[in-house]
Amino acid sequence: MKALIVHAHPEPRSFVAAMRDVAAEALGDSGYEVVVSDLYAEGFDPVAKPEDFLARADPDYLVYAKEQRHCLSADALCADIAREFERLMSADLLVLTFPIFWFSAPAMLKGWIDRVFLSGAIYGGRRFYDRGALAGRRALVGAALGGREHMFGPGSVHGDLTVMLRHLLQGTLGYAGYDVVEPFFAHHVPYVDDAARAAMLEGWRACLENIDARPVLPMPTLDDFDDRMRPVRPAKPALTE
Amino acid sequence: MKALIVHAHPEPRSFVAAMRDVAAEALGDSGYEVVVSDLYAEGFDPVAKPEDFLARADPDYLVYAKEQRHCLSADALCADIAREFERLMSADLLVLTFPIFWFSAPAMLKGWIDRVFLSGAIYGGRRFYDRGALAGRRALVGAALGGREHMFGPGSVHGDLTVMLRHLLQGTLGYAGYDVVEPFFAHHVPYVDDAARAAMLEGWRACLENIDARPVLPMPTLDDFDDRMRPVRPAKPALTE
Repeated sequence: MKALIVHAHPEPRSFVAAMRDVAAEALGDSGYEVVVSDLYAEGFDPVAKPEDFLARADPDYLVYAKEQRHCLSADALCADIAREFERLMSADLLVLTFPIFWFSAPAMLKGWIDRVFLSGAIYGGRRFYDRGALAGRRALVGAALGGREHMFGPGSVHGDLTVMLRHLLQGTLGYAGYDVVEPFFAHHVPYVDDAARAAMLEGWRACLENIDARPVLPMPTLDDFDDRMRPVRPAKPALTE
Repeated sequence: MKALIVHAHPEPRSFVAAMRDVAAEALGDSGYEVVVSDLYAEGFDPVAKPEDFLARADPDYLVYAKEQRHCLSADALCADIAREFERLMSADLLVLTFPIFWFSAPAMLKGWIDRVFLSGAIYGGRRFYDRGALAGRRALVGAALGGREHMFGPGSVHGDLTVMLRHLLQGTLGYAGYDVVEPFFAHHVPYVDDAARAAMLEGWRACLENIDARPVLPMPTLDDFDDRMRPVRPAKPALTE
């Protein structure tokens, strides 16, 4: 079994970097072959741009997804996308470690998704959600934030953090086909003491040691929709509060 | 009245670029002084990084929000952040035009938010949502996507697109204090003919001409919470389906 950890934090000695290291260690202990994409350390460029494509289906007008499909079949993706895509496709388990910036991933990680989750390979036509290319694999988000736990959930000021991250958990990882396990959140990180941080890292380690048993988030299934995506029966509950 | 249009699309002649131009024209006709931040054209760097700060509160360990606060008071923000921040703070109306990438903004635009929505100025302590620094101003999202309209909304395969964008609409724009008007979505753009695109652009123009009357999305109010963000009464409905 192979695991890919994609890590995005601008401080090399951050708490999230410790989460990255704990994940690599715990998964290694469980028998995974672990690869880490440390986006800041690698100087990854998160900008989706014309230069991503070494050959163009249409050199005059950029439709990004169309050129992804063209360059995938023409073997003309630029080097960093080709490398990251190969890592992604090789991994049975994807782990994302990042600090929550604006209730989402930092631009560095968002751009990794924009550029590496290739149209035509990961999804396309009616291949998404449970028919996405990564169906049968697992994905786990591990994120740190400043907010306190009681600021999230039913009746709280922000509402459910999992729902706030629906664009990532459902719209990206679920859409690609992953079984998306319940995310792990380390709350209030900049304001707590070392003992509290150590306890959160132990919780994170336990999460990884039990990754196969961790509950999976509810996702849409295309069985509930016809070929034009019209519902054929009442759909299962999506990721809502 | 001033308006800032922040535009992020990798193709200069895209439909979204036409949305940008229609917005600039319609707002100008309404008497706005319009500034456009065209992030791809300006070569904006979306990566939050140590070099964003010309002086450091802590040169050895980067806490990004802390250095934002430090450099704001020390007048030590790097040039592009300082320029974009001044544009943002000058604008009574913020308009974001972008293609939906993975049910969110492209990394280019996400990084503009990560770097320009400065801690200590836009938000801080108990200043967020209706107490955020940008309270009393309006924000509008205008986005294009490939999906068809019936793939969103109650009972649909993806659910409500506004809810999918809650991290941006509520967690970013609402959090900063904006009155966030109902977003404008142009569906199925790569697959429709010129007449359909022209009709969508006219709808977008009408949206901008009537921006003051456009309904505002429901957002949390801190009146419902005490100083520690514990609820003092049942909260108003958040942005849910």
